[in-house]
Amino acid sequence: MPAKTVPDIVVARLPLYLRALTAMQNSGKTFTSSKEMAQWLGIGSAQIRKDLSYFGEFGKQGKGYAVAELLEKLRKILHLDREWPMVIIGAGHIGSAVAAYPGFAHRGFRVCALFDNDRAKIGTSIAGLCVYDVRDLPEYVRAHNIRLAMIAVPAEAAQAVAELAVSAGVSAILNYAPLNLVLPDHVRVENIDPVLHLQHMTYYLG
Amino acid sequence: MPAKTVPDIVVARLPLYLRALTAMQNSGKTFTSSKEMAQWLGIGSAQIRKDLSYFGEFGKQGKGYAVAELLEKLRKILHLDREWPMVIIGAGHIGSAVAAYPGFAHRGFRVCALFDNDRAKIGTSIAGLCVYDVRDLPEYVRAHNIRLAMIAVPAEAAQAVAELAVSAGVSAILNYAPLNLVLPDHVRVENIDPVLHLQHMTYYLG
Repeated sequence: MPAKTVPDIVVARLPLYLRALTAMQNSGKTFTSSKEMAQWLGIGSAQIRKDLSYFGEFGKQGKGYAVAELLEKLRKILHLDREWPMVIIGAGHIGSAVAAYPGFAHRGFRVCALFDNDRAKIGTSIAGLCVYDVRDLPEYVRAHNIRLAMIAVPAEAAQAVAELAVSAGVSAILNYAPLNLVLPDHVRVENIDPVLHLQHMTYYLG
Repeated sequence: MPAKTVPDIVVARLPLYLRALTAMQNSGKTFTSSKEMAQWLGIGSAQIRKDLSYFGEFGKQGKGYAVAELLEKLRKILHLDREWPMVIIGAGHIGSAVAAYPGFAHRGFRVCALFDNDRAKIGTSIAGLCVYDVRDLPEYVRAHNIRLAMIAVPAEAAQAVAELAVSAGVSAILNYAPLNLVLPDHVRVENIDPVLHLQHMTYYLG
């Protein structure tokens, strides 16, 4: 565990390192270097060494990083040495697509259920998962000790369902609705809004 | 236009300001303050004032920011005073969900077409848009002067289609495939991978 507080921007890069190292391992690599990781990631090698140094000494002089060892340590640091159950709130286009995404299971996450308020959807199944009434969300979250929720409802409904989830014990939200949720400080929120990314890029297109 | 280079992290926050100001305008507000914006966004008010100061003096002493005026200036700065045509490469779950997303049009973007290599999908329509053969992508990009592409294909196919798009003139890519694309320096790439966000949050859940 780190001796001092790690800047959040460093924490945000650790999953990128994990993703690149996993790809390296899958392609048969057993050792890598900050220079090689830099090439894969488009991040400076000095930055990578500095980021990893927050968590101890990983590299071996002359040999670089042992891929499997660094992967294991990163997984521990990110608390991915367990599986995190999640719920998806909103069973529309985005919620359904996320539910069907095959990339969660081997990266530490498992979608358990979807929730919606549309009577036509409640009781159906999407990507093999049950769609429940959003009114049953608090009970489900408590019963299954869920701490992670993905919100994929229309903007005008997002704040209310976020508060409902938090009141039941959810403490981290991945928000697909295009607005900023206002929640207690102990709740982590990350936002996915493709338009924000597109608008960031058009600044440079001019 | 800014006199000096604006840090990319500042540019990345401008779309958030635009999104919050649009919501304020829709709710009838004509003036706001950096303090109020800070509450909406969870970003410090000093940070907001500093970010906006890169682009000139917006605020009026005692009255704060005129919402409509600041919106118009932000739209110009981000080059959203025009409509950007886009293509989606990959007509699977994610590509289809993105195609059906109603939030692009009024925020500066228009999805024109989807591309796939699956013969069962080519020639069909998704969310009212044609699905074309990915082999016809370069011709389409050139004919319609497309500069933005969203990539929603499996990881193993993403690098090749990205190169195909770039070779035809695409210079900004929103990448949903869970890997880092390696492309020429002039190409802007933003990545959307829900797992990266989730892993960032589990660091804090412990």
